[in-house]
Amino acid sequence: MRYYEDIEIGETQEFGEYHVTKEEIVEFAEQYDPQPFHVDESAAADSAFGELVASGWHTAAICMRLLVTGPMQDRASMGARGVDELRWKRPVTPGDTLSIRTEVLDKRVSESDPRRGYVDERLEGRTGDGDVVLSWIGLGMIARRNAESADS
Amino acid sequence: MRYYEDIEIGETQEFGEYHVTKEEIVEFAEQYDPQPFHVDESAAADSAFGELVASGWHTAAICMRLLVTGPMQDRASMGARGVDELRWKRPVTPGDTLSIRTEVLDKRVSESDPRRGYVDERLEGRTGDGDVVLSWIGLGMIARRNAESADS
Repeated sequence: MRYYEDIEIGETQEFGEYHVTKEEIVEFAEQYDPQPFHVDESAAADSAFGELVASGWHTAAICMRLLVTGPMQDRASMGARGVDELRWKRPVTPGDTLSIRTEVLDKRVSESDPRRGYVDERLEGRTGDGDVVLSWIGLGMIARRNAESADS
Repeated sequence: MRYYEDIEIGETQEFGEYHVTKEEIVEFAEQYDPQPFHVDESAAADSAFGELVASGWHTAAICMRLLVTGPMQDRASMGARGVDELRWKRPVTPGDTLSIRTEVLDKRVSESDPRRGYVDERLEGRTGDGDVVLSWIGLGMIARRNAESADS
């Protein structure tokens, strides 16, 4: 398990291969983002996008899956306070395969709770061609190693 | 249909009533955010949360549904560039009923494409008790009225 002390500013990771299907794009959007260009192929063809595109929130959720099953897998995560500068840079379309790249930008111990550390991490979602589809700066919280020893 | 010209800085809207179930929390998280406190009730009981909580991305997706089916319903939306200052302020738990409040903070015409306008809008997701669970500043794009007349 990696604790706050084990995270280094500047460390990068690349992870994953998530294949995005038309069926999943439509299913997500029907529930959470039912705009015509996300749920209806012919309406999408007539839209500014010209084809069916994934909801930006769907793209974000896919990147979160890649983060949780990849870089976060061995971290003592305590959740996240939020995300800054979430940007959708290119629409995701059926057949895209997404991966992520993460880079730790900054870290510091919480002033209000010394058992936790804050880690700011840039995430990029990318297609197989290397196009960046999404980026964000995650404001994560990670347990300190000695906090756990103090408990046990 | 409301175009860029019809949106006023300072205008607010409140909308929606979305009931969040345990089944939906687990289903979303199994697909997109499989951390123990989102997918497993007994693991969640032992976590810092003390109970099953929705993925923050699930909470965001629910707020997007409320935005699309409410305030955005009659807008000539052209999508969004991104979101700033996304914050998860309180976990969402089974049985919560969510609504949203929106407030237009700023608007301006795109310099690169005068057919579109930029609208910055603060969104808050709230429980029935009025607790704010999430907030973000959406960076939306809305068609200008005369852009459409020019096309037809």
